Amino acid sequence: MTERATVADFMERELIARISARLPPRPEWMTVGIGDDAAVLEPEKNRLEVLSVDALVEGVHFDRAFTPPHAIGHRALAVNLSDLAAMGATPRVCLVSLALPSAFAIADFDAMIDGLVALARRHRVHVAGGNLTRSPGPLIVDITVAGTVKRRQVLTRNGARPGDELYVSGSIGAAAAGLDMLKQHAADPATNNPCVTRYLYPQPRVRMGMLIARNRAASAGVDLSDGLADAVHQIAQASGVGAVVDAEAIPIEPEAREWFAGRADDPLRSSITGGDDYELLVAVRPRVARRLGAALRHGEAPLTRIGVCTENPATVLNCGGGSGSIPLPAGFHHFR
Amino acid sequence: MTERATVADFMERELIARISARLPPRPEWMTVGIGDDAAVLEPEKNRLEVLSVDALVEGVHFDRAFTPPHAIGHRALAVNLSDLAAMGATPRVCLVSLALPSAFAIADFDAMIDGLVALARRHRVHVAGGNLTRSPGPLIVDITVAGTVKRRQVLTRNGARPGDELYVSGSIGAAAAGLDMLKQHAADPATNNPCVTRYLYPQPRVRMGMLIARNRAASAGVDLSDGLADAVHQIAQASGVGAVVDAEAIPIEPEAREWFAGRADDPLRSSITGGDDYELLVAVRPRVARRLGAALRHGEAPLTRIGVCTENPATVLNCGGGSGSIPLPAGFHHFR
Repeated sequence: MTERATVADFMERELIARISARLPPRPEWMTVGIGDDAAVLEPEKNRLEVLSVDALVEGVHFDRAFTPPHAIGHRALAVNLSDLAAMGATPRVCLVSLALPSAFAIADFDAMIDGLVALARRHRVHVAGGNLTRSPGPLIVDITVAGTVKRRQVLTRNGARPGDELYVSGSIGAAAAGLDMLKQHAADPATNNPCVTRYLYPQPRVRMGMLIARNRAASAGVDLSDGLADAVHQIAQASGVGAVVDAEAIPIEPEAREWFAGRADDPLRSSITGGDDYELLVAVRPRVARRLGAALRHGEAPLTRIGVCTENPATVLNCGGGSGSIPLPAGFHHFR
Repeated sequence: MTERATVADFMERELIARISARLPPRPEWMTVGIGDDAAVLEPEKNRLEVLSVDALVEGVHFDRAFTPPHAIGHRALAVNLSDLAAMGATPRVCLVSLALPSAFAIADFDAMIDGLVALARRHRVHVAGGNLTRSPGPLIVDITVAGTVKRRQVLTRNGARPGDELYVSGSIGAAAAGLDMLKQHAADPATNNPCVTRYLYPQPRVRMGMLIARNRAASAGVDLSDGLADAVHQIAQASGVGAVVDAEAIPIEPEAREWFAGRADDPLRSSITGGDDYELLVAVRPRVARRLGAALRHGEAPLTRIGVCTENPATVLNCGGGSGSIPLPAGFHHFR
């Protein structure tokens, strides 16, 4: 076996063993873990179950030329944890379904699992099982996450009402700028550039989501997987409201603004339509806005008020400074 | 929009709407279903949660040239339900993660969903959510199933002891023969040939698994996704036992035997190493064998005693009639 060994040099059970060897001990509530036909878990008392699945496909969601395998593993889990965060749920376990090209180096396989397991440990998520198959095409990492939430704390996207204020966590545009830098060979994946790091290693706002849910601070919530503009559309459509977003209030990452300006792109448009930020967007009734206190103090990132929900069903970007209002651009959609 | 329209002619939300339109109403215990960031479910009281994931990849697990889209949808869910059956679990919900080539016809998309939903309805499984993405390569259907089981009824693969008898459900070899017929153009996907039907529309032994678990009849169980020989190896290895399988007792499907003989293949070898049967293999302590009664009377298929677990760790095929014993062939593994 040389250093260039690929996954095709291994038996399926050997690859499973390489994953198992990287996992912490099985928690007591996991009756059956990786290695049987299915995983078996003790449910958590007085909580609802939350389930989500999301796949990263090579050539669609990442390019192996500039996405290190460690980052692929991290991102695949991060995008799923972000979905749970948007529901206010506490993540618990994940299932990892991999479709692997035969030429995928075993060292890259190991690094990918390391990236996934490192993020899982940080959020106390246990790998409960999964599936391995060969892929005649792209590398695909399909992850299912399961978590729990208290009944009265579930955060859906359809509860916003006219007058509710829109808040976004952290900053936006960084991931889209980082991806652009990597594509233009303007930055190396190993760089410390904050935009590149945000693209390669998004940090799902799990604690923020839990704190917002626990305090019943929000009337609706969604994550920014397909960009801020898309997220506003999602809440507006699901809730039957419109929205006015104040362009000047949007917390665009300064490095992203600079990068897009240097590329002669509109920093605002590029930042709000760019995907991969994995921040949270929540709607908050003004009279309970103080309930955001815990999330503001103990969340992973700031929360910025960027707009308001309206009775008028239009979703509008208010450009300020006498520039008037324009329709909020549509988000990113895989099938167009 | 012509009849040749493909998924690329649609928005992601339009494709999701086509799936939603095919689903029965959301049950009361599903607080949030398809369309939000995650699904939210009421847990079932006094039961453990069971989770499994399995993917079907075009070019690895099926060939679109002779697998109708309706059958692809059916099989993708069936292989997952079979995993739950092997744990003795009652299936409840599934998540459907699809990677779709841009050229995938919308009519085929609809037919695939129809096949999946028809099987789901039959087993009272609800589609709780999923994910849609474009694939630059093969069609991939990755399904996660969640079910429940009572604590003392969980069926794992590691409980067999020397002396336990091995039983297999239904008949074996049919799916492998059916696949071979399709590959050789010896049968049409629309035929009534029982082997072809078994390959295209495997019937997961959900009721059988539940009845065996409910009566605590088995010490170990596994499904035959990778063939009977592999299943025996799985139970033996996980339980730390060996096994002697009686070749003459193996319930080979008569049409499969005939097909393989006509192809100058060894029907026994082809049947026990062929995958895709999705029958169950269980180990049963002889003194509680009567507990199989309910499964025998009310299960979907017969149960046949085919061998016994041994202290000697070898897994052996006893060929009878003075032909002696040979090592049980290895099963089918994706990465060799």
